[in-house]
Amino acid sequence: MAKTTVRARARRTDNATHAANAEALKRMFASTPFLVDVKPAGEAIAGLGERDLLHAGPPLAGWHEVRRVGALHGSILGALVHLGWAKDVAEAEAMGAAGAVTLKAANDHNAGGTYAGVIGRNTPVLVIDNRALGTRAVAAINEGRGKALRYGANDRATLDRLKWIEGEFATVLGAAIRLTGGVDLYDILSQALHMGDDGHSRQKAASALLLNALATAMVETGYPAATIAGALRFMAKNEIFFLPLTIGAGKSTMLALEGIAGATIVTCMAANGVRFGIKVAGAGRRWFTAPVPGVKGKYFAGYTAKDANPVIGDSEISETTGLGAFAMAAAPALARYVGGSVKDQARLAVAMYKLTLAEHPRFTIPTLEFRGTPAGIDVRRVLETRLTPLFNTGIAHRTPGVGQIGAGFVRTPLASFKAAAAALAAD
Amino acid sequence: MAKTTVRARARRTDNATHAANAEALKRMFASTPFLVDVKPAGEAIAGLGERDLLHAGPPLAGWHEVRRVGALHGSILGALVHLGWAKDVAEAEAMGAAGAVTLKAANDHNAGGTYAGVIGRNTPVLVIDNRALGTRAVAAINEGRGKALRYGANDRATLDRLKWIEGEFATVLGAAIRLTGGVDLYDILSQALHMGDDGHSRQKAASALLLNALATAMVETGYPAATIAGALRFMAKNEIFFLPLTIGAGKSTMLALEGIAGATIVTCMAANGVRFGIKVAGAGRRWFTAPVPGVKGKYFAGYTAKDANPVIGDSEISETTGLGAFAMAAAPALARYVGGSVKDQARLAVAMYKLTLAEHPRFTIPTLEFRGTPAGIDVRRVLETRLTPLFNTGIAHRTPGVGQIGAGFVRTPLASFKAAAAALAAD
Repeated sequence: MAKTTVRARARRTDNATHAANAEALKRMFASTPFLVDVKPAGEAIAGLGERDLLHAGPPLAGWHEVRRVGALHGSILGALVHLGWAKDVAEAEAMGAAGAVTLKAANDHNAGGTYAGVIGRNTPVLVIDNRALGTRAVAAINEGRGKALRYGANDRATLDRLKWIEGEFATVLGAAIRLTGGVDLYDILSQALHMGDDGHSRQKAASALLLNALATAMVETGYPAATIAGALRFMAKNEIFFLPLTIGAGKSTMLALEGIAGATIVTCMAANGVRFGIKVAGAGRRWFTAPVPGVKGKYFAGYTAKDANPVIGDSEISETTGLGAFAMAAAPALARYVGGSVKDQARLAVAMYKLTLAEHPRFTIPTLEFRGTPAGIDVRRVLETRLTPLFNTGIAHRTPGVGQIGAGFVRTPLASFKAAAAALAAD
Repeated sequence: MAKTTVRARARRTDNATHAANAEALKRMFASTPFLVDVKPAGEAIAGLGERDLLHAGPPLAGWHEVRRVGALHGSILGALVHLGWAKDVAEAEAMGAAGAVTLKAANDHNAGGTYAGVIGRNTPVLVIDNRALGTRAVAAINEGRGKALRYGANDRATLDRLKWIEGEFATVLGAAIRLTGGVDLYDILSQALHMGDDGHSRQKAASALLLNALATAMVETGYPAATIAGALRFMAKNEIFFLPLTIGAGKSTMLALEGIAGATIVTCMAANGVRFGIKVAGAGRRWFTAPVPGVKGKYFAGYTAKDANPVIGDSEISETTGLGAFAMAAAPALARYVGGSVKDQARLAVAMYKLTLAEHPRFTIPTLEFRGTPAGIDVRRVLETRLTPLFNTGIAHRTPGVGQIGAGFVRTPLASFKAAAAALAAD
């Protein structure tokens, strides 16, 4: 083949990629995710079977992998009891080992899993509609910090609290959301970035703004005062209540980008405790995985890196939409929480501009004179710079039931991006 | 007098001043202002007469001065009608001109006036107790932006809304506050500084956190759902609801410093539209005044500096407690609101460290690696540096009824500080 032909082909490819990525960015920035309802997952999204259980990250190879990830293991056992599929954790373990549960990647089913939390057909989920693009994603209600099923706790107290969250609380919350006609999640997130949130690990402002947005409607649902007061008290105490909404908003955004032929923009980053994986717009729903990376974190008093559960969760979708570690310069108070100086955190975040094709038009960072956050991670740029994306994360104890023991950030493995680039080149 | 005697006396004075200021700082930083109730001003604070009206800033010389300050003029006329002292603004004007109203400086009566707002004996006020120091201050409930009596609006719609605020709303709010047992205002403000507030002009985070702190109790008051929903809706829409609480918290703090002999720390900065004035710990309740300075601001579309009401308000007490312009580095999003770049605003704020004797132990600035805000303005340092304190402010139209037309900041006049220093030296 003559050199000119190669060049011409390369140019055609470049032009096609450019156009594909432009379309992907257009859809990303046009997205308008609204929280519209709370419903059982089986009603909100299609294709969930009787014994399906959605988990974070790329697909798991089987029960032996579940057993390698303490928080996930505890979470699934607790979920089987909570969902009424098993009478106790012993029976749940037997069910898991016998393959009586079908584990599926939430990301393949328009859902997002928070940390090690799982979703069954009857799990009430937050329903997020990307109204501008017509996509829908769901995520489970956040239980708060400390002992939580999503961190692997499955004792009676944890499951009783979850029963209330998914029962009385979910009912009031759903009714209130419907009364509002939908809550504009990117509107809240864009305000929250001006209020010290990164939109991922720090959700203090977004959670407070959400309660402000819902409190009136909660009172107007007509439920008894004690029920409403209980619901408001739970939300007011939970500084990360908004987290699953960020995940759902991100997922409903990125669903609109899936399958744009030739687009090299990352649409998903997630981990299941064993593998980390990404998806890329041009490759649709295919996963490109690598062994799960370690976390660089700050541990609560009494814990060290040896206590940490392996990295898990779908919340890294935040970073693909220009939030989280990519917006860390907006959240100086987060530095103390994840460790390191404010200056260092900001520098790490600003370096992410090297990996992205655009600056977010709605998510802006005041300390950078209102510059848009880096958005649209380009697989090619990751390979060129060999600087891989960062994401923020909470850290749970590897022993189920202990709960969160720290927070930090993760440098994603280059291998995933290499695999994605190779697949796109082959297409 | 021998040189050594002069030196010895100077040393004794220095030591005495140092000890006095140390005591003042100790009291400032030990202060714990709690919002404890809503009550008619006459019940919450002592000494308010039948026809007394408390206004912002140093005392006014008479009705002719009121007439020079559009927003204040409109506000007083409206208040007289609202309080039932006059049947309409014409009668109110006649009352004012006849001297039938006794105008008093709110700061001399343990109160703070927001902008041009005034307080009569029957005005329901937010009651703030500095529990650690045993002082109490009050401030009127914030009406929100736009048309408000405190900006001089006094039409029927404004007064009707105020009637609801000071009636049904104040009743529910007071009941909820009492149910909580008191709301820790410095706890909220210290969080708010990590959420992009300066604690003065930007109150978005503090207002959202306050609603979070009160929503449950509001539901538990037992008032009808429609009443509670109305109250929550009003608070959720008002991003500066917290402002009078900052003023009351600051006043209840600074009251504990008044009269510490020899202390050179500023305990009050305020303006009445004609004069700006300060108080200093060592000089008790004496005012040191100068002509009101101009504002450097950013105007909403369609307005210019020519439309601005002269500077007025007691909210500059925020700056004396290490908030507002002194904490502007914590509030980068405020830069866009008051004009100028984020970097410039932060530089102006950081320069305030030259004027203060301490860094606040509870109010910290994440972007400065959690350095405490500059707190404890020393009159001597102001004179030495000839760099006077800044304060943030809203700007109302000079024509009563138009409402807020911008926001900005003010450089205080050196003359006030010179007068204070001379008085302290004479004592």
